[in-house]
Amino acid sequence: MPEVLFKVDLTKPMEEQELPGHNRWHPDIPAVAAVNPGSVFRVECKDWTDGQVQNNDDPSDIRDVNLKRVHVLSGPFWVNGAEPGDLLVVDILDIGPLQGAEWGFNGIFARENGGGFLTEHYPEAAKSIWDIHGIFTTSRHIPGVRFAGITHPGLIGVAPSHDLLSTWNRRERELYATDPNRVPELAAMPDPNSTVLGSLTGAEYERVAAEGARTVPPRENGGNCDIKNLSKGSRIYFPVFVKGAKLSMGDIHFSQGDGEISFCGGIEMAGFIDLHVDIIKGGMAKYGIIDNPVFKPGPVEPRYSEFLVFEGISVDEFTGKQHYLDAHLAYRRACLNAIEYLKTLGYTGEQAYMLLSTAPVEGRIGGIVDIPNACCTLAIPTAIFDRDITPR
Amino acid sequence: MPEVLFKVDLTKPMEEQELPGHNRWHPDIPAVAAVNPGSVFRVECKDWTDGQVQNNDDPSDIRDVNLKRVHVLSGPFWVNGAEPGDLLVVDILDIGPLQGAEWGFNGIFARENGGGFLTEHYPEAAKSIWDIHGIFTTSRHIPGVRFAGITHPGLIGVAPSHDLLSTWNRRERELYATDPNRVPELAAMPDPNSTVLGSLTGAEYERVAAEGARTVPPRENGGNCDIKNLSKGSRIYFPVFVKGAKLSMGDIHFSQGDGEISFCGGIEMAGFIDLHVDIIKGGMAKYGIIDNPVFKPGPVEPRYSEFLVFEGISVDEFTGKQHYLDAHLAYRRACLNAIEYLKTLGYTGEQAYMLLSTAPVEGRIGGIVDIPNACCTLAIPTAIFDRDITPR
Amino acid sequence: MPEVLFKVDLTKPMEEQELPGHNRWHPDIPAVAAVNPGSVFRVECKDWTDGQVQNNDDPSDIRDVNLKRVHVLSGPFWVNGAEPGDLLVVDILDIGPLQGAEWGFNGIFARENGGGFLTEHYPEAAKSIWDIHGIFTTSRHIPGVRFAGITHPGLIGVAPSHDLLSTWNRRERELYATDPNRVPELAAMPDPNSTVLGSLTGAEYERVAAEGARTVPPRENGGNCDIKNLSKGSRIYFPVFVKGAKLSMGDIHFSQGDGEISFCGGIEMAGFIDLHVDIIKGGMAKYGIIDNPVFKPGPVEPRYSEFLVFEGISVDEFTGKQHYLDAHLAYRRACLNAIEYLKTLGYTGEQAYMLLSTAPVEGRIGGIVDIPNACCTLAIPTAIFDRDITPR
Amino acid sequence: MPEVLFKVDLTKPMEEQELPGHNRWHPDIPAVAAVNPGSVFRVECKDWTDGQVQNNDDPSDIRDVNLKRVHVLSGPFWVNGAEPGDLLVVDILDIGPLQGAEWGFNGIFARENGGGFLTEHYPEAAKSIWDIHGIFTTSRHIPGVRFAGITHPGLIGVAPSHDLLSTWNRRERELYATDPNRVPELAAMPDPNSTVLGSLTGAEYERVAAEGARTVPPRENGGNCDIKNLSKGSRIYFPVFVKGAKLSMGDIHFSQGDGEISFCGGIEMAGFIDLHVDIIKGGMAKYGIIDNPVFKPGPVEPRYSEFLVFEGISVDEFTGKQHYLDAHLAYRRACLNAIEYLKTLGYTGEQAYMLLSTAPVEGRIGGIVDIPNACCTLAIPTAIFDRDITPR
Repeated sequence: MPEVLFKVDLTKPMEEQELPGHNRWHPDIPAVAAVNPGSVFRVECKDWTDGQVQNNDDPSDIRDVNLKRVHVLSGPFWVNGAEPGDLLVVDILDIGPLQGAEWGFNGIFARENGGGFLTEHYPEAAKSIWDIHGIFTTSRHIPGVRFAGITHPGLIGVAPSHDLLSTWNRRERELYATDPNRVPELAAMPDPNSTVLGSLTGAEYERVAAEGARTVPPRENGGNCDIKNLSKGSRIYFPVFVKGAKLSMGDIHFSQGDGEISFCGGIEMAGFIDLHVDIIKGGMAKYGIIDNPVFKPGPVEPRYSEFLVFEGISVDEFTGKQHYLDAHLAYRRACLNAIEYLKTLGYTGEQAYMLLSTAPVEGRIGGIVDIPNACCTLAIPTAIFDRDITPR
Repeated sequence: MPEVLFKVDLTKPMEEQELPGHNRWHPDIPAVAAVNPGSVFRVECKDWTDGQVQNNDDPSDIRDVNLKRVHVLSGPFWVNGAEPGDLLVVDILDIGPLQGAEWGFNGIFARENGGGFLTEHYPEAAKSIWDIHGIFTTSRHIPGVRFAGITHPGLIGVAPSHDLLSTWNRRERELYATDPNRVPELAAMPDPNSTVLGSLTGAEYERVAAEGARTVPPRENGGNCDIKNLSKGSRIYFPVFVKGAKLSMGDIHFSQGDGEISFCGGIEMAGFIDLHVDIIKGGMAKYGIIDNPVFKPGPVEPRYSEFLVFEGISVDEFTGKQHYLDAHLAYRRACLNAIEYLKTLGYTGEQAYMLLSTAPVEGRIGGIVDIPNACCTLAIPTAIFDRDITPR
Repeated sequence: MPEVLFKVDLTKPMEEQELPGHNRWHPDIPAVAAVNPGSVFRVECKDWTDGQVQNNDDPSDIRDVNLKRVHVLSGPFWVNGAEPGDLLVVDILDIGPLQGAEWGFNGIFARENGGGFLTEHYPEAAKSIWDIHGIFTTSRHIPGVRFAGITHPGLIGVAPSHDLLSTWNRRERELYATDPNRVPELAAMPDPNSTVLGSLTGAEYERVAAEGARTVPPRENGGNCDIKNLSKGSRIYFPVFVKGAKLSMGDIHFSQGDGEISFCGGIEMAGFIDLHVDIIKGGMAKYGIIDNPVFKPGPVEPRYSEFLVFEGISVDEFTGKQHYLDAHLAYRRACLNAIEYLKTLGYTGEQAYMLLSTAPVEGRIGGIVDIPNACCTLAIPTAIFDRDITPR
Repeated sequence: MPEVLFKVDLTKPMEEQELPGHNRWHPDIPAVAAVNPGSVFRVECKDWTDGQVQNNDDPSDIRDVNLKRVHVLSGPFWVNGAEPGDLLVVDILDIGPLQGAEWGFNGIFARENGGGFLTEHYPEAAKSIWDIHGIFTTSRHIPGVRFAGITHPGLIGVAPSHDLLSTWNRRERELYATDPNRVPELAAMPDPNSTVLGSLTGAEYERVAAEGARTVPPRENGGNCDIKNLSKGSRIYFPVFVKGAKLSMGDIHFSQGDGEISFCGGIEMAGFIDLHVDIIKGGMAKYGIIDNPVFKPGPVEPRYSEFLVFEGISVDEFTGKQHYLDAHLAYRRACLNAIEYLKTLGYTGEQAYMLLSTAPVEGRIGGIVDIPNACCTLAIPTAIFDRDITPR
């Protein structure tokens, strides 16, 4: 087992860990450890909510979750020699649950506190608990399915530069300001409440807490991409924006469907990640990797050969209004079509919604130019069910 | 070889074929043939433009294409016994180019005449010709790549009911009317010019030509979905809206990348499709398949195990403006990131754009809930290149 | 479509074709055509028996087959510039049935005339006819299964040198002579009866007919390897033994299981192959490819993810006698175990035997060192059945 | 983490473990624990040699290994309710190295002490050490390769009945007696030396030690099958021969090539297995699973799409003698062909031999009926190399 550079105690909140992590993006959060290019190390992570959700049947913890606390991250790790303009090469050598904590949760956030992709359809909080049996998972809340996870860090990224941070805060505030009272909100703004910033204290803590970008969206630094295929064996090429790169991670999903549609989220769990890091000097310009990370998926994703695929187009399901090449809407319609189908198998809408958010379903952009309809697809691997679900 | 129910002569326009097809959707276009459930038959198809593009190096035919002529379809086929409320089950048993016409084209439409996903970046017309060698294709216009196609009908669908047709025309006109002078246009409206309607003539032709929905967008009837994985061996479940179902198809792609981003399009070709049809009586209600077709992909898609994956987020590349969970924009950014990378390998932007539109690249919705950024990914199978393209 | 360099008329025997092929290996059989490195061409092939088996339910043609006639091959093709010591690089660009002949046969040879892997268990002749529907096949003689073929030439190879031919004839005669009266015979010896040798006539025909090696076994030149994965898109590297290489092929299988256990054989059919050829000068020594061809499989084999796997060990099923690391026997036991299982699903032993010979089952060498038992496995893709066949 | 029912201390030999395991098959070895159908538990295992091989560069431990000690197994586990005639259903939920022992060994046994598949070619002892980095492994002794393991128990099986044990001992002794002085020996006979039999002592120990079958070969009870695809997520159906079934396992391989050709072996390591067990009452007769286990492979094997495939035929490489459909010999020739190829890349024969024994190469039976040559293939996934190894 590689050296554990970041340990977590699941009974304690992030600020009380031996090495406290952080839950905002800021270049001035101090590194917890320094590593050399070529080194291998293990990082333990708490679940993204810092332990707010319990392994029981009561969704009130989902309903009342404090979202200012998310995502509690492990890091940042300073990579010796990394400088702006380089590429940081990160291999995910292994990832899994912590021993003794082989379970995860999924849920539907209440519309008033978080929402999700289908919050207009499913505005009430719900919860499903998933038991992890080796490579497989099942849920007592969604019977009849069992699948192997494509385990991945929902969030992994490097620190932004001060300039990049300013850009983020500016552009997100402009969007937020267009409808500041919207529920759910349009963007999560910097907020010093519930903030954890590693070893920072005093005035420096106050400054960084006020400036630090929220971790919810994916951005130029990677971050909360929630890409399910960024799994075991993946190699990621991150653009480096600050000296030392300052790599952080968390939000481990035992499994997730493309889109993470319930927002809460995949099968959320505490866990470990084994990493190998390296540097390509000057790689950003050399390879044109400027605006976002690039990655190669690993070789051990679960293998499926039969899928049932649902299509959706960009016509609003409530009003019938035609939208212009709107892939968000088209994917929502594909998800809703899948849910209607799953209901004919006996699932409730909420169960189906959580299943699409947790199982390894594939969300594709089919056609994005056929004016005025985008066409997106949702593909469900049929082998996750304990019976044949195809139409006869 | 199954019986050929629809033959095409590539030297003649669609209206002069032995059985003329059609290029509008309308329930009153007469069927060209009737088939029984359980039957197998072959349908030949012209390319979607009705032969407007030549196998040469001059993109002027792309630039000047008459888009009112698209998509010339083969059909409709009447399926005996099919009634509204049923599911029409269509198996694509085989598909390929016509003998002696083993080539296809891709192009970039001019912004003033068609446009495409990246028309603001690449507003000029361009063309690439693809030679088909058995399961593989190469292009003299994009050197260094060779791949096996996932051949599919870009367009396959059933006739709408009169009601459904009215809904389409209404909702699309409402969108169109919000900016009727936009270039490219927001939606393609009914237009009697260049219309082909099978055997209709006279007043009936005039009426249907005025009402017939354009074939460009995918809709409830399937239609121009441009889903690359709807390939050999797929089984599609169509909702039936009119007696006889009235199945039509065309726009065959030897290969296409997810999104068909250049709009012109995949590797466009004339070809044949072998079909098997069947009916599930009352299947729409039984399986909740109401709003769009559902399908099972076939088993012989090309197999890749290594990909280079590009991410994109919903921040406008020109203005830096933040958009809210906009998957269209996020996928555009992912495509642009991939193009920047491909440029470092020596391709022009236009070559890279056409490559992403033709090769079997996968477009995925990663995260669609992480406010305010959608995260989409574009995965390029690295084996299509004649050299190792990963960063070193 | 590429130029057809070898056409077949299915109503005529091989010697009456426009260009007669051959059914023996000999360096002095004249080439039917010369091709340049880099060229693409089509070759049509008769089925391996030269049309002796009919599309009906009567197995008497299988029982009475003339095996001295097999395999009728198309070729040889002279590759300009190829010389001993080179590698001949052959791409199988496409392969399929001839139009109008979309069917194939499988059978069990009688023990007295051909035999097969399980001839002690199934000594009587049997036949199954397989209808080809695009990428799929079904048989009226083996209900409940439908699968996509991994179509391949059972036989493709280059001409031996005179020396190599002498080696073959010597070593096989030595084996044959150890039990010349065995039924089935231990090896097929040169036999001028039923011989076809292209354009050869007179004394030269007589000489070559007396010397020509039978085409039944695979050898250093490739030949009748019956490797199911040598399919569409494969690239083969043949050692070259004579000037011009003299490439021949035939014995097309729409599908075959590993081992081709019934001997008669896969789903045997007439068909076409599209080829691309090239040369690596001096490649035999450079790459150490001396004794047998090497190949890269193509990318479009049917994709399966669930298998039921049967094991076998090298203990004789009749006597209980222990054999030493005998993989032949171990695979036979695995096949017999699979047949016993398939019988519990309602198949006869003969049906199961023919199914294992035709469906894309995988035969693996598990352990070959665990004295005294070899362990071989037979993996059946479960998706070929129209029901769930796993134990419950 | 599931309850650990069998723990190992790597510093102690098997007889000194808290619960001693066993290294012979015998129905009278007492169970170490009883489990209920439906239960999940973890079993830790020592490497097959009981720790005789060290993580260093000196192959003398391989050369001098005591093979009477192998395989030290964990178990037997009594499954409540299992009776002769039932099927024991075992799910391998997870498998991996022990923490702190993330390495394994491979080697070539000396011809005088163990031998192996190619012992006539490589008679001297050799060793390679493999470091495990999450899902990947590399060896300082075989540079230029890195691959993900298909981790599996080389050995897992149930206890034989007294009758079955007698059959084993009889048939193997008969073989052994045909050449008792052969080096390597034809079969491993019962031998009380170095025997471990759980808690047995005294006269009972003496009796069982004298009768107990060696664990080297796979047999009707499963046992040392060395099937690399019996990996994570597999479900195995064992015939039950004794009350309680008495399941044992060990010989964990981080990775292995088909055939485990070096005999010493795969990448041999200590490790853990998480299991789920269940029973199908009367399943042996119901499903015809009498003579050997049947299994379904799991869904997370490493995914490769490009292979270089070597063929071999059943002609002896030393004498040129023709053998009759000998798959053992054909696979040996395929392996030798692959080794010649790998030598042209710079590997020594010994390195190549160990690589084929450890990497996830596929050994297939191509044709097994084409008299007199069997044709076997060895497929090497090209992605395990850090460079392109195909001929150019």
